[in-house]
Amino acid sequence: MRYYPESLLKLLTELQKLPGIGPKTAQRLAFHLLREPAEDVRRLGDAIARIHDTITHCEICGAITDVAQNPCYICVSPQRDRTQLCLVQRPDDIAIFEKTGAFNGVYHVLGGLLSALNNVRPEDLRVIELHERLEAGGIEEIIFALNPSVEGSATVTFVTRELRPYSLKLTQVAYGIPLGSDLDYVDEMTLSRALEGRNVLA
Amino acid sequence: MRYYPESLLKLLTELQKLPGIGPKTAQRLAFHLLREPAEDVRRLGDAIARIHDTITHCEICGAITDVAQNPCYICVSPQRDRTQLCLVQRPDDIAIFEKTGAFNGVYHVLGGLLSALNNVRPEDLRVIELHERLEAGGIEEIIFALNPSVEGSATVTFVTRELRPYSLKLTQVAYGIPLGSDLDYVDEMTLSRALEGRNVLA
Repeated sequence: MRYYPESLLKLLTELQKLPGIGPKTAQRLAFHLLREPAEDVRRLGDAIARIHDTITHCEICGAITDVAQNPCYICVSPQRDRTQLCLVQRPDDIAIFEKTGAFNGVYHVLGGLLSALNNVRPEDLRVIELHERLEAGGIEEIIFALNPSVEGSATVTFVTRELRPYSLKLTQVAYGIPLGSDLDYVDEMTLSRALEGRNVLA
Repeated sequence: MRYYPESLLKLLTELQKLPGIGPKTAQRLAFHLLREPAEDVRRLGDAIARIHDTITHCEICGAITDVAQNPCYICVSPQRDRTQLCLVQRPDDIAIFEKTGAFNGVYHVLGGLLSALNNVRPEDLRVIELHERLEAGGIEEIIFALNPSVEGSATVTFVTRELRPYSLKLTQVAYGIPLGSDLDYVDEMTLSRALEGRNVLA
């Protein structure tokens, strides 16, 4: 491609490495940036360039947190219930649960799901860190909140076995029909899980 | 939102200012960046932050070009036909025509289309620059390649009147049925234009 100046080509190449951004979107974004005030564009560029310097992982739970705030605000908050620990796959999942406001315990980021395909082995998960937290005591319940996939199930099985030495209550978030959906559009696997996990009404 | 560290919030805010990027996509992009190697992310950030320092507009045609290459490579190329000038709205449009390889003349970026709604007036267009180029001589044909909209038509009318003093051939790209499309899906306006602009076969 000789249609673009050198530095624009470089920007297009970098933008296209982002997930869901192809050549057309990259071009649209790049030309948008060229039309925006230089100062605004610099602010975006700096926010991106500096993100790895300012963000780190919480030394306790593995959530993302400011470098200046480690352990993260959830791990140090006196308002959180330290007897309940919610096990999630990725740091992003914490924000999803926090937005619901329905959970007041603490979290632990596993950092992945066991997968032969993606070459994720037990030692790639933050299991040692989990053992350390359990040995420190205080935790009574572990809530599994992993993705409902083959890898998710395998990981639940593996972690459950790891946790056998401790006397803990192990629970899992409910999988079933999402609220606001129409039964017509719910897939069979979900319906099966919804039936299996049915609750007694009366 | 207290779910995110300060610097991540700042990044999310900046990302959401981009066209077509809402809160969900911004979050997906930000967490993607956090998972990528710091060096790669810094390269993207720098490419964005520096784009306004390295890219400028060609002093002749208004296309985007490297600061070090001004006038742009098209305007200085000895291979281009300087008798044909293609009039486009935005710098991005040049790349679109260049990719076809079907045009070997030079370009002129108008910088907008007349629009009462968006408050674009004649003095906002790069018309003085166009006059200067025409007065310098050599140009024989102006090819209008503006968007087929009300604003596009108004701009064609206005520029045509401006160009009356010069004896030029004025042409417009053909509007009609796009190749590979099905007549069923072509709107009536396009069909009318295709009829109006019909060509003699035999």
